[in-house]
Order: sequence, then C-alpha cells, then structure tokens
Amino acid sequence: MALIVQKYGGTSVGSPDRIKNVAKRVARFKGEGHQLVVVVSAMSGETNRLIALAKEVQASPDPRELDVIVSTGEQVTIGLLAMALKELGIEAKSYTGGQVKILTDSAFTKARIQHIDDEAMRADLAAGKVVIVAGFQGVDAQGNITTLGRGGSDTTGVALAAALKADECQIYTDVDGVYTTDPRVVPEARRLKSITFEEMLEMASLGSKVLQIRSVEFAGKYKVKLRVLSSFAEGGEGTLITFEEDEDMEKATISGIAFNRDEARINVVGVPDKPGIAYQILGPVADANVDVDMIIQNVGLEGTTDFSFTVHRNDYQKALGILEGVQSHIGARSVSGDDKICKVSVVGVGMRSHVGVASTMFRTLAEEGINIQMISTSEIKISVVIDEKYLELAVRVLHKAFGLDSES
Amino acid sequence: MALIVQKYGGTSVGSPDRIKNVAKRVARFKGEGHQLVVVVSAMSGETNRLIALAKEVQASPDPRELDVIVSTGEQVTIGLLAMALKELGIEAKSYTGGQVKILTDSAFTKARIQHIDDEAMRADLAAGKVVIVAGFQGVDAQGNITTLGRGGSDTTGVALAAALKADECQIYTDVDGVYTTDPRVVPEARRLKSITFEEMLEMASLGSKVLQIRSVEFAGKYKVKLRVLSSFAEGGEGTLITFEEDEDMEKATISGIAFNRDEARINVVGVPDKPGIAYQILGPVADANVDVDMIIQNVGLEGTTDFSFTVHRNDYQKALGILEGVQSHIGARSVSGDDKICKVSVVGVGMRSHVGVASTMFRTLAEEGINIQMISTSEIKISVVIDEKYLELAVRVLHKAFGLDSES
Repeated sequence: MALIVQKYGGTSVGSPDRIKNVAKRVARFKGEGHQLVVVVSAMSGETNRLIALAKEVQASPDPRELDVIVSTGEQVTIGLLAMALKELGIEAKSYTGGQVKILTDSAFTKARIQHIDDEAMRADLAAGKVVIVAGFQGVDAQGNITTLGRGGSDTTGVALAAALKADECQIYTDVDGVYTTDPRVVPEARRLKSITFEEMLEMASLGSKVLQIRSVEFAGKYKVKLRVLSSFAEGGEGTLITFEEDEDMEKATISGIAFNRDEARINVVGVPDKPGIAYQILGPVADANVDVDMIIQNVGLEGTTDFSFTVHRNDYQKALGILEGVQSHIGARSVSGDDKICKVSVVGVGMRSHVGVASTMFRTLAEEGINIQMISTSEIKISVVIDEKYLELAVRVLHKAFGLDSES
Repeated sequence: MALIVQKYGGTSVGSPDRIKNVAKRVARFKGEGHQLVVVVSAMSGETNRLIALAKEVQASPDPRELDVIVSTGEQVTIGLLAMALKELGIEAKSYTGGQVKILTDSAFTKARIQHIDDEAMRADLAAGKVVIVAGFQGVDAQGNITTLGRGGSDTTGVALAAALKADECQIYTDVDGVYTTDPRVVPEARRLKSITFEEMLEMASLGSKVLQIRSVEFAGKYKVKLRVLSSFAEGGEGTLITFEEDEDMEKATISGIAFNRDEARINVVGVPDKPGIAYQILGPVADANVDVDMIIQNVGLEGTTDFSFTVHRNDYQKALGILEGVQSHIGARSVSGDDKICKVSVVGVGMRSHVGVASTMFRTLAEEGINIQMISTSEIKISVVIDEKYLELAVRVLHKAFGLDSES
C-alpha cells in the first residue's frame, strides 16, 4: 500500500464526463489498496472566464479580490469529483486550500506555500477516504484566500506530496510523459522513461510546457518522486522525474531537443568596452518589466564590444524602442534586431561527461546550411538562435543526430 | 451616522453593470457617513447553473459537496462588488461565510445560523471599510462549508444586522416594497409604507415572495428593523417591516390581499366521526412527503364528518391516489378533489379589533357570484378557496372593498 498524490489539470476535469473518468481512475488505484490524495485544477476555461468577469468590473482587478473570485474554479471541481467518487461508492471528502490549511504568504495571485497542515487529511486517509484538494490556492495567516499563480496546481500537488511524505506524486496531463522533443515537429520523438530534475528544468524553461517550473523546483527541494502521466491513455508509465543522475553509463548523452519560437533578438553593436556597459543596456529594459532570456557579449572591433539578448516576441518593439532611445547615451554604433528567430536547445546531463556535443550540434546544423546567430551554453544544455524558418528542420536533424529517433 | 446592513439579491447583481450600479448606491450611503455591511447573492442564474452541473455528476448530489460547489456563486459576487467599490475609490473587503465566521449547524443545504463572529467586521468598519459578505453560506464547527437553503441571503442579512446591532437591514429586490396585492392583477395596488411582522409572515407564506419567511421570523426574533426596497428605482422608501402594531387608529383594517394559484383541493366525505380519523387521513399523506396547507373538518351527515385539505398542485395526483388507496380502510363514502382552485386571503392586524371583515369579504364575493369552497381563518387573515377562474376578479373586488385602491 502506497500513499499517492495525483494531480489532474483543467483539461482532465474539463467536463462532467471527464470528471467521472478521473473518478474511475482514482477508484481503480483505491481498489489496489493505495491511499489517495487528489489535487484538481479548475475545469478548463473556467479560470479565464472568471478573470474576464473580474476585468469587466475593474480593468486592473484588485489582487486580493481576484483571488477570492478565481479560487472558486477549483472549489467547484473538488465538489464535483467528490460526488463522482461517492457515485462509485468510494468515500471521499473535498478540501479547499483554506480547509486543508495550505498556509501561504500574502502575495495575492502569486503566493508561495509556507506550511501545510496534514492532520485532517491524515485522519481522513486513515478512515479510508479519498482526500480531494483544490489546487492553486491557499490561505494566508490572516485567513485571506490566496492563489499560487497560473499552473499552481502542480505546485499544490508536489507540496502535498512533500508534506504527507507521499510515495509518489503523479501529474496527469494531456500528454503521456516527457518526450525527446515535440512529436508534432518530429514524429519519431519518443517518451522518456525518466528524466533528471535538472534536465526537466531546462526542458520546461525552454518551452516544453509539461510541468510548471516551480513545481519541479519544489519536488527537487523536497525529493518528491514525481511522475508525469496521461489522464486520457490508460496504463502508461509516463515519465519519472529523478533527482540523481542515472548510473547507467549507456544512457543517451542528450535527453531531448527543446525549442521556443516566441523569442526575438536585439543587437547592440559597437559599444565602448568598459565596466557597467551591460547594466547601462539592460537596466532600462528591466525597468520596463521586459524579461530577458539569453544574453551574449562578445569582443568587437577597436576596444568596443557587441551585445545581444533575446526577449519575448511580444516585447520586441518595446525593447527595441528603449535601446534606440538610449543608443547615443551608451555610445553604440548601431541597435538592431530580428523577431523572426527561434531558439533550439539540446539538453542532457550526459553532456557533462561527454565532449563533442557542441561540435555534433554545430556540424549537424552546418550540414543543413542553417546559420547560427547566437550560442549560449549551460552545464547541461546548449542553445542556439537560428532563423525561425529552419526550426522544424533543425529540431528534426538534431533529434536524429543525437540518436533520439530510436530506443537507445 | 448609522450602521446599515444592505442585502442585494441575484437580479440586482446579475451582471457586471448591475454590480457597478450596486457599488454606486453603496458609495452614496457611504458618502452620507454611514457604516455599511453589504450582503450579496450569487449572480442570477449562477446557483441554478452550479446545481445543474452537480446533477450531471451525481443525480442526487451529496449535500456536503453540493454546498462546496453552490457556495462559490456568492463568493464570485463578493469579489466583484469589492472590486467595483475600489474602482470608485471606496475601501472595501469581501468575506466568505467562513471568513466572517458565520457558524451554522451541519445540516448541509439547509443549515441554520448559530452564531456570528462580528469582531473582524467591526474592525474593518471602524477602519472605514465597506464590509461585503457572501449571503446564503456559513461554516460548521468542523470547518465544513454550509448553505442556508434557497433565499438564505435574506437570512444572512438579517442575522448580520442582529449580530452587529445594525440600525436597519435593507433588503433590495426587484420590487420597490410590499404591495397591497400583486400589481399585475390589480393595477391600483399600492406600496405599503409599513407592514407588521405578522402581516408580512402571512403575506409571504401566502405567496407574496418578497422576502424569505425565515429571514422575517429571524428579524422578529431579534427585533431587526427591516426594510424592503427596490434595487433599480432610486430614492424610494420601500416598505418598513415593523414589530409593533401601528398606534394609528386610522390605519386600514386590512393591509393586503394575498393569493396563491398553486394549490389543489382534496375532499374526503362521509368518514366516521371518531377520534383519530384526521390522523388516519393525513398520516399517509405526510408519510409521502406531501405538504398540506389548509385543513378543514366539518360535521357531516349521520355521525360522519367531512374532511378537506389543500396540497401543492404538483402533489395533487399523488395525494389523491393515496387517499383513494386508504378510502375503504378509513370508511369514507367518497374521495374527490379539484386542482382548478385558488386561495385568496385578506391579511391585516386591524382585523383583531374590527368585526365585520369576514362578512365584508363573503358579501363582496357573493355579489360577484363567486362561490366559496373552503374557508380558513387565523387571527390576522381570512383565506377562502374558490374556482381558479375567479382569482383576478376576486382579488380586484376585495382590494376595492377594503379600501386599498387609494391612499387611506
């Protein structure tokens, strides 16, 4: 008998029929003798509906009151799932974040969990009940309702698993695991049986939106055994997220190819190579609340330096305008940019002990005539910025070049 | 400066625009220097939507979980109204029933309020904030979410007014007060400036659905000054519900004419006139959960008695079938009925000190050729059952006969 925390997202509970299907799955685990805590999101579309309603009343909704409103989405789902389980003859009890009590700070709309009271849940589990908890929400020390921000239900699941010392935290999504890359781009992409926590972080931040990053960090911090599974396919093993590097030396060097087509590049060329120049360039950008992703600086001509960075494509015009505004002040020769770019990354912990990953990557792209505009590396990933039109081609040839097309 | 509790029903908060209108009204009262506690219902249609959703998952929804779901309706409204007030520059804070804490028993879907903690609300009022409370909901001693049953937001308003010792509890509805009768039947009907608590109870139970009966009882018990007003018309005084009889001897004998066309009549004729016969007749009806309204027994022929009662029209066939089933057992000569009847009542505390109300009523109906099938009286009302087709005529002529057509 294991204690399992399961989390079902908005699509998995998007209709009464889908909620009944979740109940059947939960009932099957219960029938196998496991103790179950089930975390659910709002039915798909519901959170957006509530936010739109709030914005009709107040263009910039008051954060405290927005959380009061938005948290009702999950509250409806927990009641419905409890009913669906009772209809199957399974004892179940729903809990709001406040009822658990999932104590957070008071940062409305993006609160962080500080403590979870597991007493009531443990009593219900001991009494044979399935415990159903509203994801994404908590309560602060003053009793105000808080929410954890978008995707926060994953974090709720992992935090409950940590607090209850659960044997496993299962995240059910509309995909059946983490893939070597997006199967819509590379049909030969295959599901990874396991992926390390660090790889998952890189994959997630690079646009493989399977899990919310914070939940993965949380799982890493508390060593929660985390598994991603499909809520629609039956019987799959999903992908296990591990926190120790695989001992198997035969493991592939590279776990996956991530990509992101939401980026734009800004180049600041020929600025004086002196201390503080990076701050002079990026300070105004940060002040305008524009997030910067890759940052690259290289030596330029005659005591100058060239500086490039990428921003979200939606922020491209804004960032470009800011830089053009400060160009003369910082003494740059030119400011330019391109919003028809994309970022492609190879990710894998095996990279640490294998030389040649970078050269394989660059050679593969060169053979296809794909020009590399920017390169950025970390310990377990190499990212390149290329022309957007080559995205699919680049991902496909890299997937093959690193032997991901077939079971290794 | 007064402390006022205002309650707005589902129609009054039925859209973002209507919520903004409520906020403007609240802001005006605030501007006059009053302290305000505002109780709101779910947006119109929302409670029904949530119940329908629940029934898609479980045909007979689990009561505890149904309350978890349904209570979200009011929770959305409190957040929206708080936002609308902040948008007008008014400090406001929303409270769920659990946050207040409105302590109830654990009778899910029909809980009764046991205690209200007024500490947090008082602190917010003292700090100049408008306090917004979700109607219809509370929390039991174990922290479970409860609801007070349909129309329970009125009860929340009155209970808060009692707990806070408010100067007045204002119930805003889609009518601008209590009328002498339904203006759709008698265009000459006029708004009553005041009505006694007892009259209001009789008017409410007879089908004038302005206020939930329990809230009126509650107001009577705690001597809450209760006023019914329109949430759409501005500046009206509404109708004040009083708890002492008017000292003004010029007050009309009759306050209003109530009616109900949802009833059906059952007659059990020629049963042996012996102890226990009423129970033998009504016991099986009550066992079948059929509510009985009027009950009349009269002396019949040769040691027999005739027994009549009214039920809701929806229960007519069921009740008739039950009586036909026990007819031989109770020794009745015949069992019959009619579902094309209606009940018309004259209501007024003045009746106590004025003879002749009954004779005026009966003469007025007789002059129009309207046959009276049943009569039932209480201290402050006289009800008659007549053929349904005469309903409008009867209400109109009685309204005129008792001098209600014009200001007295």
